Amino acid sequence: MRLVTYQLLNTTALRTGIQISRDEVLDIVNEALEIGSSYRVSTMLDIIAGGEVTMNLLREIEAHPKTAPVMLNKALLKAPIPRPTKNIFCVGWNYLDHFNEGGEVAKDNRELPAYPVFFTKAPTAVNGPYDVIPFDENISTQLDWEVELGVIVGEGGKNISEADAMRHVFGYTIINDVTWRDLQRRHGGQWHKGKSLDGTCPMGPCIVTADAIDPTNLDLECRVSGVVKQQSNTKHLYFKIPRLIHDLSEGMTLEAGDIISTGTPEGVGFARKPPEWMQPGDLLETTIEGIGIMRNVIGFY
Amino acid sequence: MRLVTYQLLNTTALRTGIQISRDEVLDIVNEALEIGSSYRVSTMLDIIAGGEVTMNLLREIEAHPKTAPVMLNKALLKAPIPRPTKNIFCVGWNYLDHFNEGGEVAKDNRELPAYPVFFTKAPTAVNGPYDVIPFDENISTQLDWEVELGVIVGEGGKNISEADAMRHVFGYTIINDVTWRDLQRRHGGQWHKGKSLDGTCPMGPCIVTADAIDPTNLDLECRVSGVVKQQSNTKHLYFKIPRLIHDLSEGMTLEAGDIISTGTPEGVGFARKPPEWMQPGDLLETTIEGIGIMRNVIGFY
Repeated sequence: MRLVTYQLLNTTALRTGIQISRDEVLDIVNEALEIGSSYRVSTMLDIIAGGEVTMNLLREIEAHPKTAPVMLNKALLKAPIPRPTKNIFCVGWNYLDHFNEGGEVAKDNRELPAYPVFFTKAPTAVNGPYDVIPFDENISTQLDWEVELGVIVGEGGKNISEADAMRHVFGYTIINDVTWRDLQRRHGGQWHKGKSLDGTCPMGPCIVTADAIDPTNLDLECRVSGVVKQQSNTKHLYFKIPRLIHDLSEGMTLEAGDIISTGTPEGVGFARKPPEWMQPGDLLETTIEGIGIMRNVIGFY
Repeated sequence: MRLVTYQLLNTTALRTGIQISRDEVLDIVNEALEIGSSYRVSTMLDIIAGGEVTMNLLREIEAHPKTAPVMLNKALLKAPIPRPTKNIFCVGWNYLDHFNEGGEVAKDNRELPAYPVFFTKAPTAVNGPYDVIPFDENISTQLDWEVELGVIVGEGGKNISEADAMRHVFGYTIINDVTWRDLQRRHGGQWHKGKSLDGTCPMGPCIVTADAIDPTNLDLECRVSGVVKQQSNTKHLYFKIPRLIHDLSEGMTLEAGDIISTGTPEGVGFARKPPEWMQPGDLLETTIEGIGIMRNVIGFY
């Protein structure tokens, strides 16, 4: 099942839907009203927290819709979770070829990591799959791209074993971990600030539920103004999803709706010779097989 | 004004109050009901977001209370913001003597930082000022302490100048940035995970509003089982509060209720010879002049 958060054109309210074809979405609140359901399903976070009971309602809606679908040419898809309740967990150096291209730039003879690198992006960074990414040359001009598979946590938990981990996955989305590269580096080696500027976490265009996709073998690609910059497959993830969930949840409670961005493959701008950065007017395309594509224009502030 | 979040003993609801003496609190919702106020003031985040209009209501309540105060021997103070809406912003290496003690351990001849070091603690780490800090020896035994002044953001903003910054401060609290030291270091140099375990962000016992305290000259101290471990004064902050707010808000929107923990002075456990860690049963006392004291027992999980 493909779940979306959308906005009808010329309105401000965010609505949730089931995408049933390329251009059709069933509005979940309207469907639930028709059924007379008392489940709280107004936001994507409600749906995720609702667990299997809510998923059964959605399956019923998808199988027997009672309302006419919303046509996507009359709507705009937004980030499926427009406002997470905490920072997005991100993973660094999680594709070996990206680890190596980074090492070549830093010339630091780095050893292969024994544990995943975790940092976070502020929830204010979340951006829609077709929205503009702000560019402020007064702050930085080193705007870099990072296509990543995003994992949405379903049932929360703590000290989750690798064997149990996949049971805690609600679904998958696409994230571009857009990075202001000099800002990432200038704050004493901690990446948080350079990863958290407004608009630097485009997410979407949908969440594909875990029952509908195999996350272990998905092509992913990032293009800037039509030129392929990153091209890999999630089978090359160094630390796999169960390990990431296990390590994160050790002593720290994961919650429904938490987002884990699993890291980016090789081909980022800073490691190119010479380094490349996105400019205002560039089109950033981020795509993962079976999930979809995001198209974000680099704008002005 | 001293604002608290509290729980009546043997109840689960969190309530907000104005602490008017060592042992008395005015319940804000009950007071607002008596006044017939229509302002939304049920949580501390409501109060902070309410701005000057809400502060005027609270001043009216404090000046002319209509209800009998709640006695604090019948209540438990909790973290003033029990669930922030995003991760807590933290600052590393922000007292020079702590920077130096860290450099001595790492033997890395570090240069003085040109920009503050920012990292985050997950909101699930927030803990009450008198609650137990979980200890799980299966995860780590290197439990360290870090007394810090916490700044609560009032009016949000982006690209805030240093000159304007203090206008965006709602108030101050105490934070102990409790740290599982080996976990902080083993994730590729990014500190997030070792700083975010459940219970590692005791906060409180109150928020002192910005009009009631001068944050630039406050003694702060941390004791473990009665022994003084850290003792300094906020006048030694390397990057001052206006600079922290300016740097954080550059390109990133700060919001009402955001929390900035400003860094810890010298005397932490890892820099001692030999290194010292807290053990189950230890009493962690964290105090800042004019704000109060927190007492957290190190427990078992």
